[in-house]
Amino acid sequence: MAKKKIRMGMVGGGEGAFIGAIHRLAANLDGEIELVAGAFSSDPKRAKLSGENLGLAPERCYPNYIEMFASEAKLPVHDRIDFVAIVTPNHLHFPVAKCAIEAGFHVFSDKPATLTLQEAEDLSALLEKHSCLYGLTHTYNGYPMIKEARHRIANGELGAIRKVVVEYSQGWLADAKDNSGKQAAWRLDASQSGSSCCMGDIGVHAANLAEYVSGLSITALCADLNSLVAGRTLDDDGTVLLRFNNGAKGVLLASQIAVGEENNLRLRIYGEHASLDWSQMEPNSLWLRPHNAPALYLRAGVGSQSALTQAAMRTPAGHPEGYIEAFANLYKNFAAQIRAFQAGLPADNLSFDVPGIREAVRGMAFIEHTVAASRQDSKWHPFQIGHSE
Amino acid sequence: MAKKKIRMGMVGGGEGAFIGAIHRLAANLDGEIELVAGAFSSDPKRAKLSGENLGLAPERCYPNYIEMFASEAKLPVHDRIDFVAIVTPNHLHFPVAKCAIEAGFHVFSDKPATLTLQEAEDLSALLEKHSCLYGLTHTYNGYPMIKEARHRIANGELGAIRKVVVEYSQGWLADAKDNSGKQAAWRLDASQSGSSCCMGDIGVHAANLAEYVSGLSITALCADLNSLVAGRTLDDDGTVLLRFNNGAKGVLLASQIAVGEENNLRLRIYGEHASLDWSQMEPNSLWLRPHNAPALYLRAGVGSQSALTQAAMRTPAGHPEGYIEAFANLYKNFAAQIRAFQAGLPADNLSFDVPGIREAVRGMAFIEHTVAASRQDSKWHPFQIGHSE
Amino acid sequence: MAKKKIRMGMVGGGEGAFIGAIHRLAANLDGEIELVAGAFSSDPKRAKLSGENLGLAPERCYPNYIEMFASEAKLPVHDRIDFVAIVTPNHLHFPVAKCAIEAGFHVFSDKPATLTLQEAEDLSALLEKHSCLYGLTHTYNGYPMIKEARHRIANGELGAIRKVVVEYSQGWLADAKDNSGKQAAWRLDASQSGSSCCMGDIGVHAANLAEYVSGLSITALCADLNSLVAGRTLDDDGTVLLRFNNGAKGVLLASQIAVGEENNLRLRIYGEHASLDWSQMEPNSLWLRPHNAPALYLRAGVGSQSALTQAAMRTPAGHPEGYIEAFANLYKNFAAQIRAFQAGLPADNLSFDVPGIREAVRGMAFIEHTVAASRQDSKWHPFQIGHSE
Amino acid sequence: MAKKKIRMGMVGGGEGAFIGAIHRLAANLDGEIELVAGAFSSDPKRAKLSGENLGLAPERCYPNYIEMFASEAKLPVHDRIDFVAIVTPNHLHFPVAKCAIEAGFHVFSDKPATLTLQEAEDLSALLEKHSCLYGLTHTYNGYPMIKEARHRIANGELGAIRKVVVEYSQGWLADAKDNSGKQAAWRLDASQSGSSCCMGDIGVHAANLAEYVSGLSITALCADLNSLVAGRTLDDDGTVLLRFNNGAKGVLLASQIAVGEENNLRLRIYGEHASLDWSQMEPNSLWLRPHNAPALYLRAGVGSQSALTQAAMRTPAGHPEGYIEAFANLYKNFAAQIRAFQAGLPADNLSFDVPGIREAVRGMAFIEHTVAASRQDSKWHPFQIGHSE
Repeated sequence: MAKKKIRMGMVGGGEGAFIGAIHRLAANLDGEIELVAGAFSSDPKRAKLSGENLGLAPERCYPNYIEMFASEAKLPVHDRIDFVAIVTPNHLHFPVAKCAIEAGFHVFSDKPATLTLQEAEDLSALLEKHSCLYGLTHTYNGYPMIKEARHRIANGELGAIRKVVVEYSQGWLADAKDNSGKQAAWRLDASQSGSSCCMGDIGVHAANLAEYVSGLSITALCADLNSLVAGRTLDDDGTVLLRFNNGAKGVLLASQIAVGEENNLRLRIYGEHASLDWSQMEPNSLWLRPHNAPALYLRAGVGSQSALTQAAMRTPAGHPEGYIEAFANLYKNFAAQIRAFQAGLPADNLSFDVPGIREAVRGMAFIEHTVAASRQDSKWHPFQIGHSE
Repeated sequence: MAKKKIRMGMVGGGEGAFIGAIHRLAANLDGEIELVAGAFSSDPKRAKLSGENLGLAPERCYPNYIEMFASEAKLPVHDRIDFVAIVTPNHLHFPVAKCAIEAGFHVFSDKPATLTLQEAEDLSALLEKHSCLYGLTHTYNGYPMIKEARHRIANGELGAIRKVVVEYSQGWLADAKDNSGKQAAWRLDASQSGSSCCMGDIGVHAANLAEYVSGLSITALCADLNSLVAGRTLDDDGTVLLRFNNGAKGVLLASQIAVGEENNLRLRIYGEHASLDWSQMEPNSLWLRPHNAPALYLRAGVGSQSALTQAAMRTPAGHPEGYIEAFANLYKNFAAQIRAFQAGLPADNLSFDVPGIREAVRGMAFIEHTVAASRQDSKWHPFQIGHSE
Repeated sequence: MAKKKIRMGMVGGGEGAFIGAIHRLAANLDGEIELVAGAFSSDPKRAKLSGENLGLAPERCYPNYIEMFASEAKLPVHDRIDFVAIVTPNHLHFPVAKCAIEAGFHVFSDKPATLTLQEAEDLSALLEKHSCLYGLTHTYNGYPMIKEARHRIANGELGAIRKVVVEYSQGWLADAKDNSGKQAAWRLDASQSGSSCCMGDIGVHAANLAEYVSGLSITALCADLNSLVAGRTLDDDGTVLLRFNNGAKGVLLASQIAVGEENNLRLRIYGEHASLDWSQMEPNSLWLRPHNAPALYLRAGVGSQSALTQAAMRTPAGHPEGYIEAFANLYKNFAAQIRAFQAGLPADNLSFDVPGIREAVRGMAFIEHTVAASRQDSKWHPFQIGHSE
Repeated sequence: MAKKKIRMGMVGGGEGAFIGAIHRLAANLDGEIELVAGAFSSDPKRAKLSGENLGLAPERCYPNYIEMFASEAKLPVHDRIDFVAIVTPNHLHFPVAKCAIEAGFHVFSDKPATLTLQEAEDLSALLEKHSCLYGLTHTYNGYPMIKEARHRIANGELGAIRKVVVEYSQGWLADAKDNSGKQAAWRLDASQSGSSCCMGDIGVHAANLAEYVSGLSITALCADLNSLVAGRTLDDDGTVLLRFNNGAKGVLLASQIAVGEENNLRLRIYGEHASLDWSQMEPNSLWLRPHNAPALYLRAGVGSQSALTQAAMRTPAGHPEGYIEAFANLYKNFAAQIRAFQAGLPADNLSFDVPGIREAVRGMAFIEHTVAASRQDSKWHPFQIGHSE
């Protein structure tokens, strides 16, 4: 029997939005997912037009997310959406997710997960009560060579980790004139973006990547956040010193005013015996540098690689894969997780390699602790979450 | 009214085939094209299974292409396939294309276009008699920075072109044991591959790219083709000296035994005032090097770029796009060409930036002239096509 | 009349010593300097042998530096050494310099200048009383593209500086077994090395380079120094957050346990309009990245460059110069400074682009303030020097 | 007893000459060689001034080379020059070398060795009659990682060599206005330069490097030389197809009109099991790429390397060495060869790793055969030398 596609609804991402279009490309790529419904814009006309240009049935182009979840829930199970992709500004992530979960739909959300740590903890509590899946788009986790890095560390090839250096440098907010651009305006507005611009938008990706690859957890931090361009109240740059649960030290640099940088996310991890070095700008490569021996230039598809790495690749060696493919890996994994769930099989995030509510809460904690650490006079600030971790 | 997808059939590309899967990813990406029918394999069981795993209706998983075109032609116009993607070994490209065209379907074919130059000329004649579109997957043309290179040369930024160096180095056929691998066996067999392995498989891409970007045409060549690994009758390596129609000189290096190389297609064009340098292994960059002034590192999405370049991009600067996106650009352009055709608008390949029958004939001529040039004792061999060019 | 060479004596740097040999190569290169005397080792036999292998007259191979200065001072002015190069472990820098200055010889010293900040201030006071020149080998200042970077910033091409990121990563001390190696042992021993290993050996270079190129001064710092390999009391790694006198922020990363790194000194400076990026591992290049425009890849000798840059080059574009040439630039400049002094002309360090006592004091202050900052609980530590700055 | 320096005379290389200054830097570096005499210019005033600025005794600044050799031969053995460095335009290489050898002086000559192949063969015959050493400055041989490449191939790590690709691209002659520049004018004039500009100036370096590293000999070639800039009679660009004595194929690309290229000499050698890739623009690295396994990035000083490699290094890993150091390695080796000769020990070029008369003759044969091959209509031209090889 022909395989059936997973049905997706989308909130946000109307015409002209950047990240919504990326989500759709990523969802399209493997032919596993079908976009069937959407509340693409708070402007009903634009919402409808966006949906029609995407080939959606007019009756499933909803004026808002509340109506969407209510209407979809009334459709037969095999017609209604399986999950919703949330691609709005940050302040809507939580209310949309809450509404979806209460209507029984799985959620695939853009990051950061919520506007505040409290909301993330509320979302966590909500998920414990409802039988819904939750995925978070820490896109950079999706690259094949990131999987290979994670695998090799888990495999002990570096020995004990001593030092983690992660940086995420962008220059697109370097100019005060950029303050009012479409992408910039809401990110620089605390009511839509949260307590941080730079750390919330990109620092949180860097922190997540460092933990994902190293297998370690941040336990304390010292932060220096800056608003280096005139007219800003939120940070556009910052450095965070890190301590990890195994005693390793770390540094996280994030900037949106690093003029001339494009989207320079780079992770270096130094162990006792070797180090790893990966850069998003050339994502199909991974340097493995042993102590006093020639460095190995690991390339996607060359030589023997982990099953996780191979599962994240679509092309043979030398045929570069990029950001959309990394993003598509998250969608592909989430679709597989939904299929497993629907088949009554175990369907936890870790097994399907999908960032979930744990990462959502840690990410919001990272943002809020960093902001707090930056404001205090004493050097170190503990990284604690609720009563449990 | 909701936008309708273009309907695709596929010949070849069943489970386990490399290039068929790539075609499907590329066709999926933009959500413009829907795979609805296929003759995926000469083995009927495998054909059916492949189709079902792809979510096709069982009745449109055909046992062979002849049946497919016959059956599809009987469906209502708004249901039947709009075009066929041909992803078989080379010897089937022509018969399948011929059958499709005679049944009234547009053709999107893998390269090289046919098994022989004669077939390509026959195909050209056939297309003049039928009102069908024809596209050829010279994938590397699809990269944004290749568009930018073509634009800047057309714009005169290099001055007169003096020298073109194009190389395409792979190492995957370096080992005699590779002769029998799935991808290798048919490529090394003249009855399925044609008169050349290396030049037919990759040299033809390099020649096409050189002409596409430079805007020049090859007029004569001197070739040295080699079979450097034991047990081969077809070439696995070769160098071709080139002369272009403006007097420029060139060199084309192609190898499948360049051990350690992945898929290293690189193009350098030297003009009077500046040179361009592009490499497929890092495709989002393009070097522009003026005479005695700092080199410019052009990056997709950074600064002002041509409309063609921008049309070929889906992500902002620093979010790498790769091979699948380049491939998808060909599909996207071909889909747009079909829509124009269906709307009764002008729909020529050049306007839609889709390699077509002209490139098909030139490509086959390149292969056959190179083989002939390599066999002769005199140095230069004219590059002529039929009676006309 | 034939030009006369400047005569050099050397303290330290006997057979087997690394940095002494480098000093000699650097002093030889331009044919301006002649090594004529030395106290190469505390072992008199080894001192003599080292001198003879270097072609020195036996009577000028001294058993210790005290004798050397005493004896040389008795020679006729046109025979005696003009200056002494001090290439011993750190604890001897000050006593040797003091002895030389009191005997009337110019001093060219390895860094860090002294064992403690107090010694550096004493040295400064001593130099005010004696008419001697003092140079300090901040070698990395000597690279042509560092001169170009300094020039372009002074010229305003970056606009106001906002952020400085400097890192100096090495891996050679990654292994506990390395603790006892010839180069390691004294660096890890506070009595010979001072209060810091990593910051004293390489962090001080990074801090100096950041100030030299940016033209800014550090005013406060927050430090996290680590001893990440077992059995060490001094730091082998550390990160320092920086504040500069114009309000710019900075980060300095230094590590000797960054396994797999060779000698990775890299400086990035972000201004309002553009950024600069230089790496010692490929020192003949300098990236200049404007806001939303293609990056310029500046290369030594290509296009128009500052007079300072050109003065620091010996080869045309594309003929790489390296570490020894950078070092030789310091020697060449110091030789010119001595010639000016001897001719009764103005001979200050700044005019001859030679790091001097100002940099010596600031370097020692950097080391001691960083150690103090790392030990304190409050985040920021002021960077102050004596009563004046 | 103090070690004595080897005494050098120089012909050519007066003020303003490029290559003479480089020779002096290279000869200075290791402190083994002393410049004591010179005939720096055909203009006697300039000759004298150049010598004095270099610190030479006025009586040893000769007005021409004939006088120099005659006068020096009359000096006591321990005072007179040991060898002469010839740094004139090409047409003087032979007459100066002949005069030196007949006066009993060793010769260290710039390349190409002579103006014609016949002269090179005459020089070879002359050297058989006189007991003089002869060295030729194929500078690029002097790089440490070139030694490592040669060692690894000799050691069998690549298996049988199949393909050699060597390119030498420069852009400095891209502009017709450059025809009259100081460096360009004599190179473009056959009476001073010989039968080729591009192949004689840089192609010959590339051919030598390919043979030196691979251990193979060219046996036949097919050439396409071009004069791509108006107003030139000699070649400024060319490509040569190569056949080697073991059956391997090769391509040599050389250009002086490759606008935007600096001094891009790159060598790739593909064997059965692995390939090597080296570029002069980043000379301290060497890629070793095995079949379907991660590439190794070999770096000078990292890990275990051949004795030849280590002997060619002066700094530890990560402290870049460059062109002058490579050049200095030739001088250092030639100085050692002279010392051995003077001590009555075996002193052949191969043992001291100094390019000699064999390379001189092969280089001139390469130039003349390439010019002849380019002019003929048949494809292949044998590469033969005299009656013997």
